[in-house]
Amino acid sequence: MNYWVGIDLGGTNMVCGLLDDQMNIVAKLKKPTLASQGSDDIIRRLAETVHELLEQNNIHKNDLQGIGMGSPGFINPDLGIGVFSANLGWKDYPVAARLQELTNVPVSIDNDVRMYVYGESIQGAGRGHKHVLGITLGTGIAAAVVSNGQLFYGGGYMAGEIGHIPMDGVTAQCGCGLVGCLETVASATGIARQAREALLDGRTSLLGDWFDSDSLARLTATDVSKAYDEGDELAKEVMEYTGRALGKGLAAAVTLFSPDCIVIGGGAALAGERLFAPMREEIQKNVIAGYWEKLTIVRGELIDDGGVIGSATFAKSRA
Amino acid sequence: MNYWVGIDLGGTNMVCGLLDDQMNIVAKLKKPTLASQGSDDIIRRLAETVHELLEQNNIHKNDLQGIGMGSPGFINPDLGIGVFSANLGWKDYPVAARLQELTNVPVSIDNDVRMYVYGESIQGAGRGHKHVLGITLGTGIAAAVVSNGQLFYGGGYMAGEIGHIPMDGVTAQCGCGLVGCLETVASATGIARQAREALLDGRTSLLGDWFDSDSLARLTATDVSKAYDEGDELAKEVMEYTGRALGKGLAAAVTLFSPDCIVIGGGAALAGERLFAPMREEIQKNVIAGYWEKLTIVRGELIDDGGVIGSATFAKSRA
Repeated sequence: MNYWVGIDLGGTNMVCGLLDDQMNIVAKLKKPTLASQGSDDIIRRLAETVHELLEQNNIHKNDLQGIGMGSPGFINPDLGIGVFSANLGWKDYPVAARLQELTNVPVSIDNDVRMYVYGESIQGAGRGHKHVLGITLGTGIAAAVVSNGQLFYGGGYMAGEIGHIPMDGVTAQCGCGLVGCLETVASATGIARQAREALLDGRTSLLGDWFDSDSLARLTATDVSKAYDEGDELAKEVMEYTGRALGKGLAAAVTLFSPDCIVIGGGAALAGERLFAPMREEIQKNVIAGYWEKLTIVRGELIDDGGVIGSATFAKSRA
Repeated sequence: MNYWVGIDLGGTNMVCGLLDDQMNIVAKLKKPTLASQGSDDIIRRLAETVHELLEQNNIHKNDLQGIGMGSPGFINPDLGIGVFSANLGWKDYPVAARLQELTNVPVSIDNDVRMYVYGESIQGAGRGHKHVLGITLGTGIAAAVVSNGQLFYGGGYMAGEIGHIPMDGVTAQCGCGLVGCLETVASATGIARQAREALLDGRTSLLGDWFDSDSLARLTATDVSKAYDEGDELAKEVMEYTGRALGKGLAAAVTLFSPDCIVIGGGAALAGERLFAPMREEIQKNVIAGYWEKLTIVRGELIDDGGVIGSATFAKSRA
């Protein structure tokens, strides 16, 4: 029988999944990444974990067909190189080749967002749609496009940075160097920032009762959702504004990529309809009817296992 | 020897070009489209023109390898169907199959903008670049993307409608039903409209000396260029505003598609640096440095023959 390994390698944890040929997860192991111990050491421990997975599940190593891995940062999937990753300390590091040496199976790597979106488009909420635009709403916001089963990369594998489209009227400084980028608003960080700034400006809100100036830094997007559910005006305004900004950015992406389906994943997607209702309104208002009529907008399905399933699916697609 | 035919079919004229295997134009015939005589009649006259081209140039019909055709409207290139074209009267009309019946060679068709951009990317100003974003600035503005030699289509073959991204602060009604679309500003029509509206608002300008209220409807983008060259303030403002709007729209497209090269074609591209200088500034201001540093921005090279060369190149790529 054929098996695949999908790896979701983050700055904190590495999650290795063993999947059957239908991309069902058979087993999973989660370990600390320990990035400070260096790239070669990470690869060695990844290879050990793969062997552990096979042994624990009585899979012969000849049945392992390939390994897929998603990781943060700039990845060259054609060369299998980690071009740059601040979290992992990669700089033109030959990730795929090194892991392949230790495991003797083909290794495919790509950026974690693209792996997640690839998984959703083939095995998750976007399956059945030929043209899928997927976004992850988390600390930041990023996007990827899968068209006829193929990821769209663009020059330098840099396509899809929807979070760094500057939005009119937004004045927050973005980490990328630009001002007013979509992700300064439409992200977990952006939602929390807006609420915090309003409280510091003296706005009254339930959130002001829950957090004093000492604890304000701990206010998260989840707290804004909670205050929203209790009818808090400020929380409503923040979600409304964020949803509209997100909708405006997505409208531009819809007009340029013409997806049949938008899949929304990432932690901040848990804000759900609080965010999606104004977002949908704004998309509809800003795209030609022909785009809107064929568009399905759905929450991601794979959530926690998206990276693992996407990476394994990607590895299988390249086998 | 191998020959190809490229056809640029417009609402007014049909231009048929005979090209050698290196995509050099050997001969060209231009005839009225006479769209009112019906689709079957257009196809019959296209086939006659193809035969005429072969005979006049002593090419044996066995040496003709294929025909490519670009036309306005919604085209399904996979099925070779003219889905809808107001100018040509097409509604799910099997263009490729009909022309193939009469010529006995494979026929490929696609939207005229995609054919033009394909030609520029392979044979024109974008050659040597792997990821090309091409736009045509004319009555409207449209875009297409060629990535690793492949056109990006999106769902319904509708990707790239950059002209229909609503821009903040623009209030003109667009023909598509939306308000403030980029093409209401960044197009030949948009440039002329802005100048006309300013004159009607009482602005003084050389353009006001050249056109009285009776002749104002004849004011074109070319007149605005002329006034600009004579130092006219209004003309400068219009070009500046238009260039910046175009730059802002292109910045979003650059961030999403990550092209290595932008090719700018179409009649309004003749405004040249008057438009491109503020456009470039605005792109640079609105994209992450990594996109800007790898980006080349050039005027289209193929101009008049872009449709013919693009269509023939497309036909060859599918042979």
